Amino acid sequence: MARDPKYDILFEPIKIGPKVLKNRFYQVPHCNGAGSDRPGSQAEHRAVKAEGGWAAVCTEACAVNPEGDFEPHTLASLYDDDDVINLRHMTDEVHRHDALAGVELWHSGGISPCYESRAVPKGVGQLMTVYTPHCAGHEMDLNDIQSCHRDFENGAKRAVDAGFDIVYSYGSHSVLPFQFLSKWYNKRTDKYGGSFENRARFWREQSERIKKAVGDHCALAIRISVDQLMGPDGLEVLDDGLRFIELLDRDGHVDLWDVNINDQFEWGEDAGPSRFFKANHQAPFVKHVKSVTKAPVLNVGRFTSPDDMVNVINSGQADIIGAARPSIADPFLPKKIDEGRLEDIRECIGCNMCISRWERGVRMVCTQNATAMEEYRRDWHPEKFKKADQPESILVVGAGPAGLECARVLGEQGHEVHLVDAEKEIGGHMRYVSQFPGLGEWWRLITYRQAQIAKLKNIELHLGQRLTAEGVLTYGADKVVLATGARWLDNGFSQVTMGAIPGIDCSTPYFATPEQVMAGKAIGQRVLVLDADGYYTAYSIADKLADEGKQVTAVSVFGQIGSWTNYTLETPFMQRTMRKKGIKQIGGTWIQDVEVSNCVQVRLFDLYRDDPSRTTVPVAGEYPRKMSNEATLMEFDTVVLVTGRVSNDGLYKELAAQKDRWKEEDIKGIYQAGDCYAPRFLADTIFAGHRIAREITSADPQTPLPYKRERMVWGRERT
Amino acid sequence: MARDPKYDILFEPIKIGPKVLKNRFYQVPHCNGAGSDRPGSQAEHRAVKAEGGWAAVCTEACAVNPEGDFEPHTLASLYDDDDVINLRHMTDEVHRHDALAGVELWHSGGISPCYESRAVPKGVGQLMTVYTPHCAGHEMDLNDIQSCHRDFENGAKRAVDAGFDIVYSYGSHSVLPFQFLSKWYNKRTDKYGGSFENRARFWREQSERIKKAVGDHCALAIRISVDQLMGPDGLEVLDDGLRFIELLDRDGHVDLWDVNINDQFEWGEDAGPSRFFKANHQAPFVKHVKSVTKAPVLNVGRFTSPDDMVNVINSGQADIIGAARPSIADPFLPKKIDEGRLEDIRECIGCNMCISRWERGVRMVCTQNATAMEEYRRDWHPEKFKKADQPESILVVGAGPAGLECARVLGEQGHEVHLVDAEKEIGGHMRYVSQFPGLGEWWRLITYRQAQIAKLKNIELHLGQRLTAEGVLTYGADKVVLATGARWLDNGFSQVTMGAIPGIDCSTPYFATPEQVMAGKAIGQRVLVLDADGYYTAYSIADKLADEGKQVTAVSVFGQIGSWTNYTLETPFMQRTMRKKGIKQIGGTWIQDVEVSNCVQVRLFDLYRDDPSRTTVPVAGEYPRKMSNEATLMEFDTVVLVTGRVSNDGLYKELAAQKDRWKEEDIKGIYQAGDCYAPRFLADTIFAGHRIAREITSADPQTPLPYKRERMVWGRERT
Repeated sequence: MARDPKYDILFEPIKIGPKVLKNRFYQVPHCNGAGSDRPGSQAEHRAVKAEGGWAAVCTEACAVNPEGDFEPHTLASLYDDDDVINLRHMTDEVHRHDALAGVELWHSGGISPCYESRAVPKGVGQLMTVYTPHCAGHEMDLNDIQSCHRDFENGAKRAVDAGFDIVYSYGSHSVLPFQFLSKWYNKRTDKYGGSFENRARFWREQSERIKKAVGDHCALAIRISVDQLMGPDGLEVLDDGLRFIELLDRDGHVDLWDVNINDQFEWGEDAGPSRFFKANHQAPFVKHVKSVTKAPVLNVGRFTSPDDMVNVINSGQADIIGAARPSIADPFLPKKIDEGRLEDIRECIGCNMCISRWERGVRMVCTQNATAMEEYRRDWHPEKFKKADQPESILVVGAGPAGLECARVLGEQGHEVHLVDAEKEIGGHMRYVSQFPGLGEWWRLITYRQAQIAKLKNIELHLGQRLTAEGVLTYGADKVVLATGARWLDNGFSQVTMGAIPGIDCSTPYFATPEQVMAGKAIGQRVLVLDADGYYTAYSIADKLADEGKQVTAVSVFGQIGSWTNYTLETPFMQRTMRKKGIKQIGGTWIQDVEVSNCVQVRLFDLYRDDPSRTTVPVAGEYPRKMSNEATLMEFDTVVLVTGRVSNDGLYKELAAQKDRWKEEDIKGIYQAGDCYAPRFLADTIFAGHRIAREITSADPQTPLPYKRERMVWGRERT
Repeated sequence: MARDPKYDILFEPIKIGPKVLKNRFYQVPHCNGAGSDRPGSQAEHRAVKAEGGWAAVCTEACAVNPEGDFEPHTLASLYDDDDVINLRHMTDEVHRHDALAGVELWHSGGISPCYESRAVPKGVGQLMTVYTPHCAGHEMDLNDIQSCHRDFENGAKRAVDAGFDIVYSYGSHSVLPFQFLSKWYNKRTDKYGGSFENRARFWREQSERIKKAVGDHCALAIRISVDQLMGPDGLEVLDDGLRFIELLDRDGHVDLWDVNINDQFEWGEDAGPSRFFKANHQAPFVKHVKSVTKAPVLNVGRFTSPDDMVNVINSGQADIIGAARPSIADPFLPKKIDEGRLEDIRECIGCNMCISRWERGVRMVCTQNATAMEEYRRDWHPEKFKKADQPESILVVGAGPAGLECARVLGEQGHEVHLVDAEKEIGGHMRYVSQFPGLGEWWRLITYRQAQIAKLKNIELHLGQRLTAEGVLTYGADKVVLATGARWLDNGFSQVTMGAIPGIDCSTPYFATPEQVMAGKAIGQRVLVLDADGYYTAYSIADKLADEGKQVTAVSVFGQIGSWTNYTLETPFMQRTMRKKGIKQIGGTWIQDVEVSNCVQVRLFDLYRDDPSRTTVPVAGEYPRKMSNEATLMEFDTVVLVTGRVSNDGLYKELAAQKDRWKEEDIKGIYQAGDCYAPRFLADTIFAGHRIAREITSADPQTPLPYKRERMVWGRERT
């Protein structure tokens, strides 16, 4: 199909200084865990997007000296010759697809932990941050400032050597140039502090020095947070934000403005999770920028709809559509719009799993796109599949996330696929998860796969058909993949006590699993939500029930309910929401036992209660995860159990017990994918379905094939 | 000097199966952040210990398949040919020093996050853990068990290929074999669950398979936690602990028992921080083991005293002295005992900074030993120093941790050093830090350096001499290193508000800095300790004042007071202590302002309080780190401010303002080391003193020289 003419505007070329973007799609700098140390993964991840139609793709933040070391959070670096070699590989691969390559030169401003380099980071002052409690950076003196400028100059020259087309001076997320600009951070009394002109001096100098160093080899972009969200004590868009852009516009060396909003704290204000933010939520701030500069402006906004993008351009908000998360979820987003294949767009669900992995210090993943960061090491392409030499007939049982993905990928490879589910609708547990407050966009996981499966004629979908073991055995398939999911435990069992909680019975009105709550089970007025899971379910249940007018208490073994959401940047918003809705929260606590009369009396215990007998008496006494007489008694009408999940693996176990029948029925193998093998993150579940489909013809599809490990091998380097 | 004969017993050889330990000093497996991916760092770190006299040195835990991936926590691996090459380098280097090399084969039992490999980890059941909230592993079926046995066999064969002398079956810290053995984790109903014999089956099989695979090439060691510290619900030493060792002793294939106590939760019970545990704290548990086995037994206990070690042997507690932390703090500990140089031993202080870096997912460091993990990449040897070609006269100002280390390392290189301090005693801020409850052993940082400096005739120590800028300029030194430390802020300034707290005045009785508290300032009965620092000071002050009978409340911007101690494994013990001593704790909260009458009225605000105006109105309204009308009013007699530190850099600034004088006085350079440059961790401070001394003749000693970065460089590998 051809492009809808109403989207033509998105494909107009845009001049940025000495370079030209071939269209308005721009992958802004974002981390992926590869940095400069995993050159294959870095290059292929960016190159696939270049192939998918993005006019420019950028690295993550790239340190100009060892003070930028943010390990375990991986960034790129450009301060030695090997860095140039490793990033040159990325630009070579990107250029093969006729896209521009950008590099985001940066300096943390003293907030780097420097755990790897052991450098002492320097900043506008002696700043401490949440990233490095107990530690402050060195306050730059005038020599340090000049030295920093030289590091940026050298970094910019290396960027030219490495083949980059766009070089950034990065000052968002409260890093060095921003620290100088913002009166919140800048308390200096020298010529770099005080008045607006003084505070702007450092960044102005830095950007001039970079521009001079790169000449016409690169366009100069500035990434700036135009509002710190701290009111008049910080930088505000209608104050120093616009004033700074105007000032540098007059200087005339900035070729591109990449604008967003944030501070180093709570950068979920920028990378907004879909639970709390819709697309283009930064518009009220960034819309002002174009009025004060002649250079092109871009902003992000988790844009996945071409209509939204056209509105951004036509309304004069920005010239270029920036994207990080949508480009990860679908590297081919521009091409799909160009080719009129909107139904093929794999829309970002805004779960922030990608970000969580950077926060955790590990390789990026994407819930929607199982191939993200597997392009090089597993040789997986998001849109291309090796056709099977000998197509097989494969039965996939379960049309939840793992089963749908498995069927889709098998279908793409040309196998004859039957996807069978006991329910009348596809989606598995996503049918209720997407009903949680704010999680509607998570249903995109299902709609994308539904559309793809509908297009693949070699996939048959059978709903409302519950297969027994006998049904599977006699189905006539060469191979079977079970994707039957998991369920929440209904007896209070958790890792905390490794046993059921005495007195709990979900067949009574006093207790409920998350599935029962979402299926409409009657819930009393005073509700206790128990969280030993640590991610989104307990919070979501509490949120939903509070909306329904219940009086909700949440008890968690973790310090906070759903504490893992610290990594997805959701925690601050969740905490504020709980306060607003009156949800009471008790952390570091667990349930001991219950007594049911006309309500539930719950005995709770503090995980760290003082226990004088502990460890001093070798083999007797109380232990922290055990019963205690110091319990607190509380009364509820219903207790909701978010204590742990267990695989729905009954069908597999029945089949495994009849291995002789497999051969009789000409079944070459029966495998498990996703939660029915082990309940893990949604991203893992979809990955599992994808992987087993990609590797279905390997000797043992249940065991992953090896992948390329990017590391030094002793003695193998050419010298 | 010669060895004291009373220590001869420590140097007796010990036979372990087919191998012989040349003495009783044994570096047990411990992580260092190198794994199999940084072969140079791995090899040199272990080789330096081999050189220092340890009879055996071991790797960290070493995965036999990708399910063992624990990133961001780095472990070793032995599941492909490149792993063999990289670890072979370690064994080669270790063998050059006539020591044995051991490898700790392991499998996490389903508790690995597998963030890098994306494998699905398998365990005895579907276990969730604190390392992977929301995720459970796959429950192994009988096929999985056989497959796992094969992985261990293959791993063991690779260990032989890589040149190892000792191979472990590792079942401490609740990993796979322990999960099978412990009824706490093992809920199986097949032949691997239920009775003791059934629960022991897996580990027994695994160890047999490993022994068979290695034959006489390696000794087989088992590392086991003999008590899970959970009472009868878990594994106890006088029950299944000894029973298992007895059973395997009868089987006859175990050559060495490496015993400790712990569970996966709170492994500070094993690696006890000195604040809560003295040397050999595991004795009450591990002392039983020798009675049930003929094989040699070793245990750890943060042993630094040779007298303690002799007692361990003579009392029949163990045959071999195991050490992790003491071997990091002093790789030459055995040699120093052997040579009768006890005063040269750099004793571990038990701060657990080494462990904190693994927990954080980064390279190991050691507070005592600045060369730890720098042996390869910076070519630093813990005991050897390049003699200066042209010794210089160097003035070091400040005899705290950084200054002492700097002077020592300059002295070792043959420079003429003057170490000058304004105080009458050395130690800097350690003089009060070592007075905090439980931190007495931290003073070892000072005693070691004091002894070394006393031995170096080219170091002059001048105490009680406060140098002015003029005094420094006219001192007659070629170079000057300032190590004048840092101080606590006295105005309530912190990163939270980036401003002083209105109303605070430490010259009144109502407010105090930590230094004032430790100097004996009168403190009222109702005390508030404010923590924006996040490490040990606020807790220590609260602990001390509670011991003195004060009524203490601690308010922290973090979730818990001193939350960084989660990484040093101190948190659980601190939390229990606070409950025991009645210290009230309020997290996620900060101070707004104060009003002083005959006491201090403090207004506190919740960092996450609901604020409907936030982010929805662009440039107005309340922000989370700002004032609020929703503050809570509390009353105290004294407020102690642990809000942040600031460098004592006044002297440097005075000197920097007179650069022309430097040349006049023939001063080649004036530098800053440690907290006076930037207040950071003690380990960083000592590292800074060490580094600048090692690099004092470089072009710019203030800027670290580059180090070798161990990573793949694109296209440089020989194929």
